[in-house]
Amino acid sequence: MGLVIQKFGGTSVSNVEKIQNVANRVIEEKNKGNDCIVVVSAMGKSTDQLVGLAKEISTAPNKREMDMLLTTGEQITISLLAMALSEKGYPAVSLTGWQAGIKTEPVHGNARIVDIDTTRLKKELSEGMIVIVAGFQGITEDGAISTLGRGGSDTTAVALAVALKADKCDIYTDVNGVYTTDPRFVKGARKLSSVSYDEMLELAHLGAGVLHPRAVEFAKNYNIPLEVRSSSERESGTIIKEEVNMEQNLIVRGIAFEDEITRVTVVGLPNSLTGLSVIFSELANNHINVDIIIQNTLAEQSTNLSFSIKNDDLEGTIKVLENVREQLKYSRIESETGLAKVSIVGSGMVSNPGVAAEMFDVLAANGILVKMVSTSEIKVSTVIEQDKMLKAIEALHSAFNLSGAPIES
Amino acid sequence: MGLVIQKFGGTSVSNVEKIQNVANRVIEEKNKGNDCIVVVSAMGKSTDQLVGLAKEISTAPNKREMDMLLTTGEQITISLLAMALSEKGYPAVSLTGWQAGIKTEPVHGNARIVDIDTTRLKKELSEGMIVIVAGFQGITEDGAISTLGRGGSDTTAVALAVALKADKCDIYTDVNGVYTTDPRFVKGARKLSSVSYDEMLELAHLGAGVLHPRAVEFAKNYNIPLEVRSSSERESGTIIKEEVNMEQNLIVRGIAFEDEITRVTVVGLPNSLTGLSVIFSELANNHINVDIIIQNTLAEQSTNLSFSIKNDDLEGTIKVLENVREQLKYSRIESETGLAKVSIVGSGMVSNPGVAAEMFDVLAANGILVKMVSTSEIKVSTVIEQDKMLKAIEALHSAFNLSGAPIES
Repeated sequence: MGLVIQKFGGTSVSNVEKIQNVANRVIEEKNKGNDCIVVVSAMGKSTDQLVGLAKEISTAPNKREMDMLLTTGEQITISLLAMALSEKGYPAVSLTGWQAGIKTEPVHGNARIVDIDTTRLKKELSEGMIVIVAGFQGITEDGAISTLGRGGSDTTAVALAVALKADKCDIYTDVNGVYTTDPRFVKGARKLSSVSYDEMLELAHLGAGVLHPRAVEFAKNYNIPLEVRSSSERESGTIIKEEVNMEQNLIVRGIAFEDEITRVTVVGLPNSLTGLSVIFSELANNHINVDIIIQNTLAEQSTNLSFSIKNDDLEGTIKVLENVREQLKYSRIESETGLAKVSIVGSGMVSNPGVAAEMFDVLAANGILVKMVSTSEIKVSTVIEQDKMLKAIEALHSAFNLSGAPIES
Repeated sequence: MGLVIQKFGGTSVSNVEKIQNVANRVIEEKNKGNDCIVVVSAMGKSTDQLVGLAKEISTAPNKREMDMLLTTGEQITISLLAMALSEKGYPAVSLTGWQAGIKTEPVHGNARIVDIDTTRLKKELSEGMIVIVAGFQGITEDGAISTLGRGGSDTTAVALAVALKADKCDIYTDVNGVYTTDPRFVKGARKLSSVSYDEMLELAHLGAGVLHPRAVEFAKNYNIPLEVRSSSERESGTIIKEEVNMEQNLIVRGIAFEDEITRVTVVGLPNSLTGLSVIFSELANNHINVDIIIQNTLAEQSTNLSFSIKNDDLEGTIKVLENVREQLKYSRIESETGLAKVSIVGSGMVSNPGVAAEMFDVLAANGILVKMVSTSEIKVSTVIEQDKMLKAIEALHSAFNLSGAPIES
């Protein structure tokens, strides 16, 4: 008995049959006597199709209109799921982001949730309705439809769990848990029974793809345990929570990766106190996420600054840099696309200084040139050529003993 | 200089290329110095695809959820058109029904507009924006998304023209005007340069398909002249207005038709004062539109009552009738699907009593059995087998001298 939030991703609702399956999973929770809120994404590849339409019209579509466009995807899923539940005799009501009271900052494409007005949600629950909420979307103060960015449905689910003090927040996906690396790409990948928020954060940030980083942060801040589990199988998944029994002898817990990376280099940037701050403030103001940043200030008049972004942000980044050219007086911009990031992650890494060196050894032995490196307490990231990404993952997965029997921590 | 409402139907926005074309038509009006509001439908067959998804889930999908589902179609079009205009350097903003202030009665699937709060629309226009409004949709008092029924985008356009006292309301479609019958089906069909509201009303009601009847009613009540014209060609279309120069020698002005008709017969209905009222009130309460009604009360204890509905409403109709069975004590319900309605329309008909007889002659000569008949001052409707519909239209079009040179009234 309690309030359960269930989130189903795009692959779990990619056709009517799968939506029926989701309805059955929801009914199972309802029949246990729980109040149920279900958050769903757009069906399968429908978001990509909508993006494709917009790209036919503009290489950089108006962001407000992009949100207007993309939010239709979740609206389709919520209505179909509510119909399926009604048809099975379980009263359900679908709510768009604005109807569910999900308020965001006045940003398009990557807005943060600022508040959830739970009045409507509580009213529907009190009437025994199963409430289906469109993930990924909200409304700005002046009534515009906004989106939380790709993967934002996870954030919607966790934010609802926080706002309504849910007893459980289950993230259903097409894999049955969090793996040592993405099992869709690496056959030897193994399931972890639990991971810490921080490990998950690194894994999610680095493209493991099962859970959106902002959702993990949100869950960590409010200490909401999440379970990542399969929408098609019944077995338990991976629990993400604060305390995890670590396997001391498994230093690297997972290999994360992300493709479509571009490296941008600002060549001949005069040494100054404010240069970096100007560039990265302006990029942030334009909602361009920068990942790895590398700068070595040598004893010269000027320096080269490199950073990595998603391919899609290259055009925007160049615009930003050109706007500050006169102010910063750098000589030119270089960029290299076709790159990928591969990272090793594990909480045990902090006390094992040789791990990074081992990673570079493995990559070198496989003829893979490392173009950028970034390290933190629990991860080492490298940027390499995208067409060598898979080779790198497989080599690292094997070298760090991640292949083999399921990992029960 | 003034305010122009332009409405583009689904076939005019069925792909990105056509949306670009619509953007150009809008820019032409804007460049004349006009304020522009553009109402668009869902892209091509997208509404049918959404209906198909819903029907996979339920034979009678929840109507609130159906509205939630279908309104995504127009939302996609408005965002793409706004993007296209922005890309061409014309600031545009898209508004869903609720954002545009279109308030409807609390009904799903076939709601009427009760009010338009024009604050937002006026604000955007005053800032020089081209405003793109999602047709077909509105919002109920309690915040649910509602729809105006199929073809409701026409109603949206006319309602906006009324609310904002527009100078012009152009309905762009895939034909270049109103024809003597649907030119997609009958090669000899000819364009009319103008028709009266009443004639258009009969033509629209009867399925000519270029303009929604509620929109014509609306325009008639507020005396807003409409122009039906082609979205791909530049020539002028058909003007719908109060006064039309009639060609006295052309009694029948058009042939209208509608398929997917079902005839329902209530057999053995005891004669009573309230029987008819009970049945049709209940059907109306359930938002089932009844078209032709036939009853002959003979000198017997009971009678047979027949009426025609759309095929889709059969299930709902039978439910309604079964609910009143105990009260009305009729013996059984019969129904026949696979029917079509074919009608002749013309204001001159009222003074020419032989027209109906001539119609029956033509049908009989072509071996077409008339199953129901209904007449008014300006039309005669017959219900026949659907697979003989096209044959009937062609025979009537030819018999009433509608084929030939363009009709310039």
